[in-house]
Amino acid sequence: MSWLDEVKWDGDGLVPAIAQEVGSNDVLMFAYMSRESLARTVELGEAVYWSRSRQRLWRKGEDSGNVQKVRELRLDCDGDVVLLKVEQMRADPADPAIACHTGRHSCFFRAWRNGAWDTVEPVLKDPATIYR
Amino acid sequence: MSWLDEVKWDGDGLVPAIAQEVGSNDVLMFAYMSRESLARTVELGEAVYWSRSRQRLWRKGEDSGNVQKVRELRLDCDGDVVLLKVEQMRADPADPAIACHTGRHSCFFRAWRNGAWDTVEPVLKDPATIYR
Repeated sequence: MSWLDEVKWDGDGLVPAIAQEVGSNDVLMFAYMSRESLARTVELGEAVYWSRSRQRLWRKGEDSGNVQKVRELRLDCDGDVVLLKVEQMRADPADPAIACHTGRHSCFFRAWRNGAWDTVEPVLKDPATIYR
Repeated sequence: MSWLDEVKWDGDGLVPAIAQEVGSNDVLMFAYMSRESLARTVELGEAVYWSRSRQRLWRKGEDSGNVQKVRELRLDCDGDVVLLKVEQMRADPADPAIACHTGRHSCFFRAWRNGAWDTVEPVLKDPATIYR
């Protein structure tokens, strides 16, 4: 039995995937993985998600250079969620670590404050210069 | 416009929710929230999920006493995932912090090791004594 069979794939053949940064332990992003993308992630040692909007494999950083090296892969008690502990690579060594397409460190940059979602994390790099 | 309307609910009216422990930054668990459960979470200051298996509101810790006090609530860039920064409470002050129904600190206790999922986190408390 393959380790991939122990993952409980949902009705669309996907599993939710949480990417957490090694060291800071910051939660960087959330995406989905297909069976093929999880297998590719392990082969490459880099996060490969399934893009639901584009309906294709999406190697994180393929356009931006913001690749995620996978240092550890975890599965939850029910077998239906994976957690990736990643090293967030930079397109340029001088760049800060950016996981979000908005140019922020983490996708979770809005915080609930008295009935509104406030942006609490800065843009570290202009997205126009990330995606060329 | 309500802050709840800024959340992009999926076809089932749910949003994925990640619970992360304040302090350690450990990812404790993953569940779903309905509009009502997210509203109740904010009202109570404690995590209230939507149980898909039981099809009802599920106040975390209602049976076990392992309540999650919510210290911060975050929303991601696409507005379709929430991140809760929680203080994992204990049924008994002498207990360790337990989020998983298996009696472990975190639900993500299996790690990929050379083609297999190895259990890498210990049971801290016998589930038989957690759920009575």
